[in-house]
Amino acid sequence: MADQPPQDSLLKQRLRTIIFGTDTPAGKAFDISLMVAIVASIVLISLDTIGSLSDAYGEYFIIGEWFFTILFTIEYLLRLYCSQNRLHYARSFFGVVDLLSILPSYLALIFPAANFALAIRVLRLFRVFRVLKLLRFLADGNLLLKAMMQSSRKVFVFFFSVTLIILVLSVVMYVIEGPQNGFSSIPKSMYWTIVTITTVGYGDITPQTPLGQIIASLTMLIGYSIIAIPTGILTAEISHEMVKVRDLRKCSNCGKKGHDNDAQFCNHCGSELEALASLTQP
Amino acid sequence: MADQPPQDSLLKQRLRTIIFGTDTPAGKAFDISLMVAIVASIVLISLDTIGSLSDAYGEYFIIGEWFFTILFTIEYLLRLYCSQNRLHYARSFFGVVDLLSILPSYLALIFPAANFALAIRVLRLFRVFRVLKLLRFLADGNLLLKAMMQSSRKVFVFFFSVTLIILVLSVVMYVIEGPQNGFSSIPKSMYWTIVTITTVGYGDITPQTPLGQIIASLTMLIGYSIIAIPTGILTAEISHEMVKVRDLRKCSNCGKKGHDNDAQFCNHCGSELEALASLTQP
Amino acid sequence: MADQPPQDSLLKQRLRTIIFGTDTPAGKAFDISLMVAIVASIVLISLDTIGSLSDAYGEYFIIGEWFFTILFTIEYLLRLYCSQNRLHYARSFFGVVDLLSILPSYLALIFPAANFALAIRVLRLFRVFRVLKLLRFLADGNLLLKAMMQSSRKVFVFFFSVTLIILVLSVVMYVIEGPQNGFSSIPKSMYWTIVTITTVGYGDITPQTPLGQIIASLTMLIGYSIIAIPTGILTAEISHEMVKVRDLRKCSNCGKKGHDNDAQFCNHCGSELEALASLTQP
Amino acid sequence: MADQPPQDSLLKQRLRTIIFGTDTPAGKAFDISLMVAIVASIVLISLDTIGSLSDAYGEYFIIGEWFFTILFTIEYLLRLYCSQNRLHYARSFFGVVDLLSILPSYLALIFPAANFALAIRVLRLFRVFRVLKLLRFLADGNLLLKAMMQSSRKVFVFFFSVTLIILVLSVVMYVIEGPQNGFSSIPKSMYWTIVTITTVGYGDITPQTPLGQIIASLTMLIGYSIIAIPTGILTAEISHEMVKVRDLRKCSNCGKKGHDNDAQFCNHCGSELEALASLTQP
Repeated sequence: MADQPPQDSLLKQRLRTIIFGTDTPAGKAFDISLMVAIVASIVLISLDTIGSLSDAYGEYFIIGEWFFTILFTIEYLLRLYCSQNRLHYARSFFGVVDLLSILPSYLALIFPAANFALAIRVLRLFRVFRVLKLLRFLADGNLLLKAMMQSSRKVFVFFFSVTLIILVLSVVMYVIEGPQNGFSSIPKSMYWTIVTITTVGYGDITPQTPLGQIIASLTMLIGYSIIAIPTGILTAEISHEMVKVRDLRKCSNCGKKGHDNDAQFCNHCGSELEALASLTQP
Repeated sequence: MADQPPQDSLLKQRLRTIIFGTDTPAGKAFDISLMVAIVASIVLISLDTIGSLSDAYGEYFIIGEWFFTILFTIEYLLRLYCSQNRLHYARSFFGVVDLLSILPSYLALIFPAANFALAIRVLRLFRVFRVLKLLRFLADGNLLLKAMMQSSRKVFVFFFSVTLIILVLSVVMYVIEGPQNGFSSIPKSMYWTIVTITTVGYGDITPQTPLGQIIASLTMLIGYSIIAIPTGILTAEISHEMVKVRDLRKCSNCGKKGHDNDAQFCNHCGSELEALASLTQP
Repeated sequence: MADQPPQDSLLKQRLRTIIFGTDTPAGKAFDISLMVAIVASIVLISLDTIGSLSDAYGEYFIIGEWFFTILFTIEYLLRLYCSQNRLHYARSFFGVVDLLSILPSYLALIFPAANFALAIRVLRLFRVFRVLKLLRFLADGNLLLKAMMQSSRKVFVFFFSVTLIILVLSVVMYVIEGPQNGFSSIPKSMYWTIVTITTVGYGDITPQTPLGQIIASLTMLIGYSIIAIPTGILTAEISHEMVKVRDLRKCSNCGKKGHDNDAQFCNHCGSELEALASLTQP
Repeated sequence: MADQPPQDSLLKQRLRTIIFGTDTPAGKAFDISLMVAIVASIVLISLDTIGSLSDAYGEYFIIGEWFFTILFTIEYLLRLYCSQNRLHYARSFFGVVDLLSILPSYLALIFPAANFALAIRVLRLFRVFRVLKLLRFLADGNLLLKAMMQSSRKVFVFFFSVTLIILVLSVVMYVIEGPQNGFSSIPKSMYWTIVTITTVGYGDITPQTPLGQIIASLTMLIGYSIIAIPTGILTAEISHEMVKVRDLRKCSNCGKKGHDNDAQFCNHCGSELEALASLTQP
């Protein structure tokens, strides 16, 4: 195999820069057009599920689907062709997703069962996760992620406590209200508790007994109050991370730190600040 | 045309100060009366849509509508008359909105179709945006706006991730629940996902299958948790901006910064503080 | 009149200390028993509105009501008797509320119309506002109040913008959905918009048209996002106020500030800290 | 009795280390297997309440229930056997819970009434509270708890005010809407107010009169706004506690404080930092 980097043809190297790279204008343009194509294909699949539209423009939807299937097939083959380690790409998360997103259309030709096609068609949507790769451009995404990582243990303690509260309230409500008022089983009672504690409140199951309504009121007040806890945890972490990012922008002349992200000159001595290229360049 | 500033008549200059200016008492009084008139006209249009009121007092509503239409027509003509650059005003956002807010009533005379009048009548409501001009008085509005601008990239990353979650959950729920349980198409499933993830929870579409209720519970918990992220981002930014505004109030005697907005004397040396006129004057 | 302080009898002075004062043990005991009596009377009125309880124990409820009415009448007369300036008390907010909370029961004897009695009975509930007086004990209430005052202008800008968004969305939804889908008038459409934007989501009125559902989804996402703004404003203010309260606790030995509310010794030099009597004593 | 520590047999001491202790690998393994067993028994009870599953696999559920009952009985007896002070354990919160979680199954043999068994079966769920003991491992739980303790007085003031608002709104809505619109009593009206103010919004009771809808809109806006207050209080406290925890990590070389939880070297002088063993070890 010609997998040794030096032997790579110029075309292959260039394709790799465009398809896998994100630094050159061509690489960025490729990523953005791919994103547009993915979103367009999702919109197409979504609209196809609307009965009236599907009946009226069914043929156009089929043409559109095949257009995107062929487009993504070409993209997949190009990625396979120009990747430095083909097996590594094919086995990677995005390699598998890329393959699965084009497979259903071809399989639907061989197994024409409508339901089967529908069930695997959804996998195609995982294409959008490819868009997530664009997030690596954004230092802000990393800041959020770091704040979430730092607070993950505190958030776990919170969710552990919430799970316990949900379990106890579910059993209490199941015993109080019982199957005759819609709380037909403990799992269904858990569904009701989650609907209530998250303040969603569909109203498909509601307490009918006075005692049940008192417990329900308590559940709502708990749900309404404890939302403050993860917010507090994350706010404190994000605030800490943002101060750290601002402190990175140190004036090389007077040493003052803590400049705004959009500041170009030191607000203490007036000398020009270095751009936070790796952090603020989109 | 007499559009050169020096040639302007005294009346024109005076009118301009009142209508466009906001610094003189007369200018403020004009803006406030205009706001009252706009709100009154909206209340009138709104009450007119209530069937019982419309039937009983229909004539008074028509009189009231014409009163405001003529009032705003006079205002529009005065603005046109006294503006330094008429074409510039007529083409500006508020110039167009001012014209569109009076046009429907006159057009309804020529084209008496009720529905047509109703459809364009809504444009009149954009009058309220004129009230937003008063916001420039408020430094607090600018602080909020600046905090939102500073955090816009982080918020974009957040909403991008939420959109992906909504898309995936929509398709999953469409496949699990299907048209027989109200999830008649992927767009409708998206509507359900947004209703659920924002914790609104109308209950017009609810999951019926056990698996669907499990995914729905997950959706609710996601929606309930991730609200913490934009709150954290914005809180950190607002906190940072407020510290900066407080630091603007520096004591001219001892140099201490960080005084409260309502402080009149330095809490370190006791000397009088300069008023933050541009920031705190309403 | 014997309204000059020195002429006051000893009994009057003592009663005043107990009834109006809050510093002595007797004064505190009086306020707490009054609070218990107010809450008990509210519970009684509330339970009386439950049909089955009212039918079964109607007589006891009437006895209970008269017990509390006579109790609060005695309290009102005592307050009138021992206040330094009777007219001032009788005209004060709590003086009027005290009178209105006992009047309905006596009036119901003269005008026995059931509905009339019911309508004025609600005034009795304002008795609970007397409990708010106890809040002056709590420095924490003042901290919250001060933070809210400081942020009131920013919150006003926020609510002004939200009101504009609600108005525009209401008219848009009224035009799109119309009376046939439950949006029977613009005020009703406003009700729907508030139900949706606050994420309450009763589901009594829901959008039926595809375009209406798109606008509704947008409304929900707006409501879900902008909750971050007042939270951010208030958090920043509370945080600022709390730092200020902590800075009040300055070590008299080494001058270190920022001690915790429950700290008894300086964590820098070990010397005892002064108790923040006025702030932390309940 | 052989309750004096020195006389304890080696087996007893070893068992105590495993069952009550959490520091040795065996102790941790015991706690984790216990947690798994508790969760499994809850899942079993929950699934047993689903009619279709109970009909199909009823016998397996009974076997499973007895398996866990015997397992927890052995655990309870072992705890009794190896505890240093048996009476103290038997009377402690977890001692009582441990007993109550196994009793219902044995009692159901003697009193075979289905409803009775169901009502006491719920007590078994309190087993999960034993899992809470694991929380003592987590310094993060303590930080959250301390932040909540510190802010408890402010949160009390908040909830006191909210309770007053709920009471007043309940009576107002009861008088406006009345029994004919579902507000059949003041307690039911309170239930509606809590459903609305917490933004749950089931929609089982909704205002029908225009005035009721205006008050309801106000209730929603109040609920939507005041959520900011506890969030602000808790965020400020958590932020303060986190700064304190960070300040605990002081570099022994240069004295710099405020290092991140995952930092291993001082970011000022480069010398190694002491691990925050008691705080960060899970």
